Amino acid sequence: MNDLLQKPRKVYVSRKIEFNAAHRLFNPLCTEEENLAIYGKCSNKNGHGHNYLLEITICGIVDPNTGFLFDLKELKNILKEEIMERFDHKNLNHDVPDLQECVPTTEVLAVLIWDILEQRLHNINNREISLHEVKIYETGKNSVSYFGE
Amino acid sequence: MNDLLQKPRKVYVSRKIEFNAAHRLFNPLCTEEENLAIYGKCSNKNGHGHNYLLEITICGIVDPNTGFLFDLKELKNILKEEIMERFDHKNLNHDVPDLQECVPTTEVLAVLIWDILEQRLHNINNREISLHEVKIYETGKNSVSYFGE
Amino acid sequence: MNDLLQKPRKVYVSRKIEFNAAHRLFNPLCTEEENLAIYGKCSNKNGHGHNYLLEITICGIVDPNTGFLFDLKELKNILKEEIMERFDHKNLNHDVPDLQECVPTTEVLAVLIWDILEQRLHNINNREISLHEVKIYETGKNSVSYFGE
Amino acid sequence: MNDLLQKPRKVYVSRKIEFNAAHRLFNPLCTEEENLAIYGKCSNKNGHGHNYLLEITICGIVDPNTGFLFDLKELKNILKEEIMERFDHKNLNHDVPDLQECVPTTEVLAVLIWDILEQRLHNINNREISLHEVKIYETGKNSVSYFGE
Amino acid sequence: MNDLLQKPRKVYVSRKIEFNAAHRLFNPLCTEEENLAIYGKCSNKNGHGHNYLLEITICGIVDPNTGFLFDLKELKNILKEEIMERFDHKNLNHDVPDLQECVPTTEVLAVLIWDILEQRLHNINNREISLHEVKIYETGKNSVSYFGE
Amino acid sequence: MNDLLQKPRKVYVSRKIEFNAAHRLFNPLCTEEENLAIYGKCSNKNGHGHNYLLEITICGIVDPNTGFLFDLKELKNILKEEIMERFDHKNLNHDVPDLQECVPTTEVLAVLIWDILEQRLHNINNREISLHEVKIYETGKNSVSYFGE
Repeated sequence: MNDLLQKPRKVYVSRKIEFNAAHRLFNPLCTEEENLAIYGKCSNKNGHGHNYLLEITICGIVDPNTGFLFDLKELKNILKEEIMERFDHKNLNHDVPDLQECVPTTEVLAVLIWDILEQRLHNINNREISLHEVKIYETGKNSVSYFGE
Repeated sequence: MNDLLQKPRKVYVSRKIEFNAAHRLFNPLCTEEENLAIYGKCSNKNGHGHNYLLEITICGIVDPNTGFLFDLKELKNILKEEIMERFDHKNLNHDVPDLQECVPTTEVLAVLIWDILEQRLHNINNREISLHEVKIYETGKNSVSYFGE
Repeated sequence: MNDLLQKPRKVYVSRKIEFNAAHRLFNPLCTEEENLAIYGKCSNKNGHGHNYLLEITICGIVDPNTGFLFDLKELKNILKEEIMERFDHKNLNHDVPDLQECVPTTEVLAVLIWDILEQRLHNINNREISLHEVKIYETGKNSVSYFGE
Repeated sequence: MNDLLQKPRKVYVSRKIEFNAAHRLFNPLCTEEENLAIYGKCSNKNGHGHNYLLEITICGIVDPNTGFLFDLKELKNILKEEIMERFDHKNLNHDVPDLQECVPTTEVLAVLIWDILEQRLHNINNREISLHEVKIYETGKNSVSYFGE
Repeated sequence: MNDLLQKPRKVYVSRKIEFNAAHRLFNPLCTEEENLAIYGKCSNKNGHGHNYLLEITICGIVDPNTGFLFDLKELKNILKEEIMERFDHKNLNHDVPDLQECVPTTEVLAVLIWDILEQRLHNINNREISLHEVKIYETGKNSVSYFGE
Repeated sequence: MNDLLQKPRKVYVSRKIEFNAAHRLFNPLCTEEENLAIYGKCSNKNGHGHNYLLEITICGIVDPNTGFLFDLKELKNILKEEIMERFDHKNLNHDVPDLQECVPTTEVLAVLIWDILEQRLHNINNREISLHEVKIYETGKNSVSYFGE
């Protein structure tokens, strides 16, 4: 079965999910004026928010028995547990313990999500599957990618 | 000039803008439990947020001299003053006086934006131009339209 | 609460869902040649398929107590039960009893979904909420709308 | 066949096509300064251009024999002949005779395309099919609709 | 001509096309229960389908005479012959000989399309142009990329 | 502050902007017939145009003090000065001095924008930030990427 997979084929599988969150860019070690100079309207006192569109890419050799890189149902569950429950309909400054000591920029969020998913995939991984990229679109115009480097 | 416009032509012109805001769906006249029953995770204590995509539609007869329904530069300025300055990078519950007595659902936001723009266009209007529709996409999946009815 | 809602406000709320289905456009009362003349490659023997993007619009007066037209959690459940369970990952020609006597064009699908949802909303409806539009995007280029007329 | 279509069902079918064209907004009856005041950078001497996304909507009763409102292959041919050959990869100011006496705004273009398609559909129409809407997205942010009013 | 191209410039050119196909994920070497455990609703007996959005990327040095990497008209023809005629409005399980021995997952489809296009481009190639990536979006949420590794 | 950033994290930040321009693909060293053979309808005498969607990606180590790779307000200003003022609402053949000796294909445009931005970022750069990619979508179907190779 699956002659095409007789030689190893390395593919990249991406999955998009969206979460809605509030945040405020504010560094408590700086004054209000310094925060305003660095973060502009993103430092407004009562915060604002975004529809964060997250795209996760994993890579590895296609399983010749199933034709899948990874069970998508399992990936969906991981993203539900690790991402949606942690970030969706939350305030990134107040509701996410991992961000307590951080200014929750999109860059920081991408790095944090990488660390969370890398750990999780490492634990369950019995084949050669790697996290390849965490990409976050904060708006339709701005995005940040992190590849674990 | 503009033979096509010798008879009156009624067109509908739409313009999209995006603003990023935080909100929390919470009715202070109800208990926490009642709010949770009605609003679910949207009533989480510290709020969440969205990229609100707003589409404004105005209608009227095309001006045979310019070929325009309305000066788009003027419409951009109106939307900047009335919408972006009021809602962008704001917390809808705390930063918008008109919403102080409201639960800031997308329905309520559409109605409020209609009232604001209808008033503004009425004041400047020296030709027969009407606000036709205020449409807000809260996410890629959900939207609300209000036509002033 | 909600001064903006002291006068009745009629809004239109839309929700998008996607289902993936196979179909074949073929009228058993016609010959193969006639089917090919009418339906072209859409009548290919073994069928093809689409990501159907369905947009449902309901309308009515905003509830002044909640700021909602309708409980979105309830709407999600209705769409899950009536649409996703009936059509998602199905073959429209073989798996959907209501389409047994039909050529499953997008026009027919829009009419059928209207009839299903109109019945369901009628049964649960204790306020003045109406189904307004059923719109199906068969591809990014083609769509069909039905308003119950 | 097609029990769902035993009673007449009025549907709206939309089709999107894209054409790429140059234009300059400039009224030869006005001075350069007046043109700049009205049209801003859109009056720049050597013109600019757009990917115009055109959405045509026709409406009528679904044919109970085919389940179609209208043969989509025929609609594709009409749009190819009437729209693509006339506007695609053209300069709207110099290459389109119908626009010689016009400032080619999006409003004017929508009206012209309505007139062209209304005439064409009228000529071939042996059933009750009407042109319902011509909508042009000039950019992702701006669009104009004309309904023949 | 083309001073900018006096030094070699390596660019990546991407082209998107869409095809609509039915498929069923089912491995005949496994039982119905095993298939259901692996493929879930994707193994439903009568199949389902998708609008597959395919993005092909080729790379190489820009031709200093034309300013093109590759003649887009020729690329369009290749994609029409090799992709559209093979996959569009087809059932991947029954109508595509190359997939007879395969479970037609998106991963397998990406690998097959790579093999087809790599062969074809190799045969016509008289300059240094390479196939770089085959990316397939099965839905708006899921995609698979293959780079020939 | 920002424990997550105690080790260096290399991120890629992308920003999209749109400009609207006219162009004609025509090489004055070739005959009309040769141009038609190479460029097809893109060589039409009076030109055509596009909504060019430009995506710029820069990369480097996240600043542990701000959580930013680069001040987005500064990036916006650079793109306004270098891209929008040079290309928006212009005719690429006549209004852009850098393209006088070129056929303004999307490939050439990507290379030119790389050269412009690379120079500009080099001049202001006091930290380790690099231009990574210039990507231009000429239409929704075609795009070109240049990485400076």
